[in-house]
Amino acid sequence: MRERLMMKLMEAQGFVSGARMSLDLGISRGAVWKHIQVLRQEGFAIAASPRKGYRLLDVPDVLYAAVVNPLLTGGFGKPYHYRHSLTSTNDTAKALAHSGAPEGTVVVAEEQTGGRGRRGRFWHSPPGGLWFSLILRPKTPPAEINSLSLVLSLAAAEGLEQLPGISPSLKWPNDLLLGGRKVGGILTEISAEADQVHYAVAGIGINANFTSFPPEIEQTATSLQAHSGGAVCRPRLLSALLTALEDNYRRWCEKGFPPFRAAYKERFGLLGKTVSAATPTGTLNGLVRDVDGDGNLILTLRNGEEMRLSTGEITVRGEEH
Amino acid sequence: MRERLMMKLMEAQGFVSGARMSLDLGISRGAVWKHIQVLRQEGFAIAASPRKGYRLLDVPDVLYAAVVNPLLTGGFGKPYHYRHSLTSTNDTAKALAHSGAPEGTVVVAEEQTGGRGRRGRFWHSPPGGLWFSLILRPKTPPAEINSLSLVLSLAAAEGLEQLPGISPSLKWPNDLLLGGRKVGGILTEISAEADQVHYAVAGIGINANFTSFPPEIEQTATSLQAHSGGAVCRPRLLSALLTALEDNYRRWCEKGFPPFRAAYKERFGLLGKTVSAATPTGTLNGLVRDVDGDGNLILTLRNGEEMRLSTGEITVRGEEH
Repeated sequence: MRERLMMKLMEAQGFVSGARMSLDLGISRGAVWKHIQVLRQEGFAIAASPRKGYRLLDVPDVLYAAVVNPLLTGGFGKPYHYRHSLTSTNDTAKALAHSGAPEGTVVVAEEQTGGRGRRGRFWHSPPGGLWFSLILRPKTPPAEINSLSLVLSLAAAEGLEQLPGISPSLKWPNDLLLGGRKVGGILTEISAEADQVHYAVAGIGINANFTSFPPEIEQTATSLQAHSGGAVCRPRLLSALLTALEDNYRRWCEKGFPPFRAAYKERFGLLGKTVSAATPTGTLNGLVRDVDGDGNLILTLRNGEEMRLSTGEITVRGEEH
Repeated sequence: MRERLMMKLMEAQGFVSGARMSLDLGISRGAVWKHIQVLRQEGFAIAASPRKGYRLLDVPDVLYAAVVNPLLTGGFGKPYHYRHSLTSTNDTAKALAHSGAPEGTVVVAEEQTGGRGRRGRFWHSPPGGLWFSLILRPKTPPAEINSLSLVLSLAAAEGLEQLPGISPSLKWPNDLLLGGRKVGGILTEISAEADQVHYAVAGIGINANFTSFPPEIEQTATSLQAHSGGAVCRPRLLSALLTALEDNYRRWCEKGFPPFRAAYKERFGLLGKTVSAATPTGTLNGLVRDVDGDGNLILTLRNGEEMRLSTGEITVRGEEH
């Protein structure tokens, strides 16, 4: 009911009377008043005038479809599925994709109870964050998905940069950093035949409006709120991210990774650093030299040998990431 | 009950008395006799002796776990799931893999009601065929799965070749041909992160013991029975295939496609042929020159240009495949 009431306030773009809402929603004017009070307690700025009724003063920081939909600029985010709590938005999106949900479908949850990062690692996803998954249906072989994932993480960085004072760097392959700390990440999963992707699900997690972290990541994680001192408007941020994701995705479908290489390198936090790279075949130590046209990491090992990595866990040596 | 009775006969490796089976299975001796009669009607060679009981004279052509399990030589086929009818063994295997089923798990169905080939195309899967899926958990990026699929199709050809008079050729990427007609195929599907496969499901379909085909594939398909004139013993064939699949898979995990390249080329029906290759970016016409160390097809186009294909639908020009 509160989501429907919120929708009425959004649609009105001005004052809407209590009588009107009472009629449209089939509840008493007293009930409308009570719901408005709860919404105000949740932090929504709602003006009340005895004669004109109620008016939303700003886009509220809530990810209901009614709030996000008017802010969308393209095809991504339609259809839009919001849930208060999910195990993992990627799992829900994969199930939807399996049932035929179209490209652009977005699944958002206020919190994830089993959020995952790469390799099945736990991803702390409390209320206040921005946790969403996007269904894509690129007509490519599975090999291309690695570079898609880089291009999406670049889009996420570009979307975040529209916030004042926020300029994330990228830790290959998929982490977003602020001041060297993890502020977000991308987990791209696919279902595919040997030479053809059926669908991809890109899970994007942004530590937005919360400031406390579990002890094990306290030293390595940050959030937009912790970094900038104030809460961000998540619906606007989601809209900006979806616009950037759609732009980059369309361009990638046409031209692959090469057009993004320069922009990726510009944000690339690892260039020139000495790192350890844990790969399925062993750990390599070397100097990060470049990212190639396929999105592979190029390392120069101590013996001077050059290595190209398509996968690996990177640790900057002497720092704790 | 008949599967349990069959298991008793298999375990006995000789005569087993009606009284023993009656006791073990908790049914009357008369019921045992009736089940034996039904099994005989289904074509199983079972000897009956008034004093000694019943004895299986040969491995029956049925894919029950009780029949297949004693024939297995390695780890593939354990656990083993047999169903009389499934929509698609790949779909069931994917659901099992998602729930954590281990590498080597096999799903077999006597018939598939919605069997699929590549690109979601219908695969005719009537009773009498050999339709099974194998769960694999290779620690590789998705890009490698294309070559895994080739290596598994090579294993399937090698397994089939143990039958007298059967020597399949391979139509890149995944079809098995006898006398130029399709006798089987592989559909490898994966669930993966951008740079790490979660699991692969290899679906193997062999047109074994049936001889009639729908009109639309009548001219292009064949079966082992149609080709050789007699029915094959599917449990033995399945065991031979699983042995070959496991051998090739283990070697591929260690060394990739290169060790298989020569054997693949030897069976490769397209070498030197003029073909059309329908790819996601258009159709190419050219001469098939080679298969490279990653399993890509190498074509020489009419203008002399050389192309490497990782995916595509091949049509031999002037022939109907």
